Amino acid sequence: MSILVVGSVAFDDVTTPFGKIEGALGGSATFFSTAASFFAPVKIVAVVGEDFDMSSLEFLHRAGVDTKGISVAKGKTFRWTGSYGQEMGDATTHATLLNVFQEFRPSIPDEYRREPYVFLANIDPELQLSVLDQVESPRLVICDTMDFWISGKRDALLELLKRVDVFVLNETEAKELAEETNPIRAAKAILQMGPSRVIVKLGEYGVMLVGEGKIFRLPAFPVEEVRDPTGAGDTFAGGFVGKLAETGDLSFEGMHRALLAGVVAASFNVESFSMNRLRQIDRGTIDQRCRELEHIAGWSWSPEKAESRA
Amino acid sequence: MSILVVGSVAFDDVTTPFGKIEGALGGSATFFSTAASFFAPVKIVAVVGEDFDMSSLEFLHRAGVDTKGISVAKGKTFRWTGSYGQEMGDATTHATLLNVFQEFRPSIPDEYRREPYVFLANIDPELQLSVLDQVESPRLVICDTMDFWISGKRDALLELLKRVDVFVLNETEAKELAEETNPIRAAKAILQMGPSRVIVKLGEYGVMLVGEGKIFRLPAFPVEEVRDPTGAGDTFAGGFVGKLAETGDLSFEGMHRALLAGVVAASFNVESFSMNRLRQIDRGTIDQRCRELEHIAGWSWSPEKAESRA
Repeated sequence: MSILVVGSVAFDDVTTPFGKIEGALGGSATFFSTAASFFAPVKIVAVVGEDFDMSSLEFLHRAGVDTKGISVAKGKTFRWTGSYGQEMGDATTHATLLNVFQEFRPSIPDEYRREPYVFLANIDPELQLSVLDQVESPRLVICDTMDFWISGKRDALLELLKRVDVFVLNETEAKELAEETNPIRAAKAILQMGPSRVIVKLGEYGVMLVGEGKIFRLPAFPVEEVRDPTGAGDTFAGGFVGKLAETGDLSFEGMHRALLAGVVAASFNVESFSMNRLRQIDRGTIDQRCRELEHIAGWSWSPEKAESRA
Repeated sequence: MSILVVGSVAFDDVTTPFGKIEGALGGSATFFSTAASFFAPVKIVAVVGEDFDMSSLEFLHRAGVDTKGISVAKGKTFRWTGSYGQEMGDATTHATLLNVFQEFRPSIPDEYRREPYVFLANIDPELQLSVLDQVESPRLVICDTMDFWISGKRDALLELLKRVDVFVLNETEAKELAEETNPIRAAKAILQMGPSRVIVKLGEYGVMLVGEGKIFRLPAFPVEEVRDPTGAGDTFAGGFVGKLAETGDLSFEGMHRALLAGVVAASFNVESFSMNRLRQIDRGTIDQRCRELEHIAGWSWSPEKAESRA
């Protein structure tokens, strides 16, 4: 089954201890689609400026991504400039030039309105709501956000959350939204806001899934050389939603494997700038690392086997 | 099989957002023994001052801990004063009064010298080395340390590491010791210093085990109300070494279950001040939470089952 993603396509200027890139392909919808396309067909709705070379998305077409929903507007493409320190934690943003994104009002093409999986990448929650008004009974709505909207558009975000199935956000954002200092209490409080599942991204420590009275924790794949974390969150979401769309298993346990795919996709993404690393690999490479992460997380060692050893 | 632990028995003054205790039972050897005693017999070597009431260790005797190796010296017992902020991360130390601990030269009683499991809690690495000179071919030597010794007694610590099987330290310490910014590269560098296994404690994110070319990651048990993190590291070590001594399975995979016991013991410890919570529970309570953590970590969902669902 296929996926509709609404988000940004952007140019990134990024500096890390490993180097610097300027005007590299970026944006939440782009990172998401690159990862999701390993698992399922993807349709993008976004906007770029006249300075954007559509042929730079050729690799996405080859991967089965439909980019007809990307409109070209008068002006320049959204551009983000940021840098990372030695520890590769949160980015320092030096400039966010919204450009054509400032006037972006997502219009979902008729042929995209019945997509079963809808991913609302991190944009203004009012726009995310307008997307939901345009789609017809999706099987699953997954949504991301950021601190900027949590503090600046809280009411719209709370309105949106009532219509979201799976909400994805990082630990700091979860604590801020729920006004809690403990991440588990924060996730449980967010469940009360509407979503049936909350995924808290823990950066290099992996992810936590909460819902149905259950908690699932998956570590990140251990990457020894993180060169550029930009887009890791959207790449994670891409692998996660892509795998869900592939298997169709939306049970709590079925999401384990989808989270594995997301975490593994993100681990490749951070190994190089932009989406360069993901563009070099194939599905076999991803599946191989998924198996490695299963071992790292101890999945290969079931309780039954454990009992027989003990 | 039984365990020898050499470390501190102390008084703690602790302030957290949940309250304040003064002169509470603390110390690395005490926290370690409390946790380890759920799984195996423990023998403590430590020192206390004349102000210490030995009857406060009565609960350890009942749990099968031998405290004959705790000597009473002229002066006052080691006392630590610290506090935690809202996020319950690292403690702020307000005072460390070594008192009788300053002159502590561990002397291992004859009947303790053939213990198969030896845990060297966080003390001066020169003293840890002196303990190893007094024991006879232990089956497994596990060792903890702290940033103070990494920067202040690096040579002694490196000498010690050549004689240690399992080295336990937290993420910041691992990076500092290995002079690396990446925790996986740090752990691998530490393996080159001697130990066959390195355990990196990740606080609320769990633990990482590295060795034999393998990595294992276990999340922490999700605790919604952390009231006092003091002693969590030693409690983790107690559960870990205790379970190893119980099962005798020192394989990399066998250590999965021992880490589970350690992480679960630590999760109880942080739920209350001092070792109050651990003193309330029994082995069944621990085993129950171990099974819960297996589910949270996805162990109950083997790759085979995953494949059949996909």
